[in-house]
Amino acid sequence: MKKIEVLQNILEANESIAVRNQQLLDKHKVFAVNIMSAPGAGKTSLILQTIARLKNRLNIAVIEGDVASTLDAEKVKNEAMEVVQINTRNMPESCTLIAAMIEQALKDLPLEDMDLLLIENVGNLICPAEFALGEHKRIVISSLPEGDDKPTKYPLMFTNADAVIINKIDFLPYVDFDIPVFRRTVKGLNPKTRIFELSCKTSVGIEDWCNWLLQEVEAYLLQVKSA
Amino acid sequence: MKKIEVLQNILEANESIAVRNQQLLDKHKVFAVNIMSAPGAGKTSLILQTIARLKNRLNIAVIEGDVASTLDAEKVKNEAMEVVQINTRNMPESCTLIAAMIEQALKDLPLEDMDLLLIENVGNLICPAEFALGEHKRIVISSLPEGDDKPTKYPLMFTNADAVIINKIDFLPYVDFDIPVFRRTVKGLNPKTRIFELSCKTSVGIEDWCNWLLQEVEAYLLQVKSA
Repeated sequence: MKKIEVLQNILEANESIAVRNQQLLDKHKVFAVNIMSAPGAGKTSLILQTIARLKNRLNIAVIEGDVASTLDAEKVKNEAMEVVQINTRNMPESCTLIAAMIEQALKDLPLEDMDLLLIENVGNLICPAEFALGEHKRIVISSLPEGDDKPTKYPLMFTNADAVIINKIDFLPYVDFDIPVFRRTVKGLNPKTRIFELSCKTSVGIEDWCNWLLQEVEAYLLQVKSA
Repeated sequence: MKKIEVLQNILEANESIAVRNQQLLDKHKVFAVNIMSAPGAGKTSLILQTIARLKNRLNIAVIEGDVASTLDAEKVKNEAMEVVQINTRNMPESCTLIAAMIEQALKDLPLEDMDLLLIENVGNLICPAEFALGEHKRIVISSLPEGDDKPTKYPLMFTNADAVIINKIDFLPYVDFDIPVFRRTVKGLNPKTRIFELSCKTSVGIEDWCNWLLQEVEAYLLQVKSA
């Protein structure tokens, strides 16, 4: 039986560590992206596609968050300049990465040489929405086989996202997923968010996503250099 | 900012409410099943298929757990004898149903007239594994598009399951999902669990699942009647 003792406001404590993490990233001019989704929506595949397209332009490291196993880190390790695996199984918050875990992982990364940090959160549409990590952008992936009702059922995740990716669009002939309905629901929760439609399997739409991400990194670098 | 104050061992407190829930269910001879999965794996579809097959044999009520919305309860309400929706959004544990929520919901159900209670948990492969609700059986659904690595990445959910359902087997031609590997991994974690392969869309395999469930309900009724 796991014993949980929470003696302070854990979300406030998390927030202040997240701010410290972002200060450290900014000091080293590293743009950090928090990638969230339900299990199996394609976080690791998106990371692999993104590294493949951008590794000639950016030095990219990855933090892999999982309850258990190193499966994803093993998939990524030959592609990224560095990978750190976090297993949350025996931690008080096993359902999400939290800022304190990232603070620890940043000590194992070559920040001085990095441009982009991709953080793969634990597969979960609920808990990760509440815990800032110090990231500059928050990305949510929904995949077609999950159904188009997820923004209605898990609203906070979509309300806080800087970009929403609709993955596995190659499944469109086989599933009931109404893309316009999904888009309208997301925009109703979060009018400013960007929405990308793509397939990590066929590579359709990956270029648009990577172009947007590259622009965001470049805009960030201009901003931190002038600060 | 949500304030979380946990002044006692919440899992122990949950366990004692779960025991009370099961005593109440047993008093009324109601067999309860806790259905868990990642978002979009097919919990509601399985419930609809199960009611369609068994409603001439059993009086079936449903508790629907969701972070937000009543979408699933609306789908089920014309099929089940009664449905209670629980929305967890503003509760301290938003990522799972907990026994105290079920205790409340049981007050709104006609226990005396029921044989079977299907509880659809919040879509999440992590938190629900830790919170007993008072159920007699725990069912986990994995769907083919999620990938075959979920038992390795979310082991507790599969370790505690009485039955594991592989749903969306009609997707087999379109995905990389190794059913023998998945079965071996699940059996490695939990040798006694039953595994069913089915498709809620095509109805393949539903009969085997419903036959097993019906046998479990009948064995339970014999046991509580003789107690």
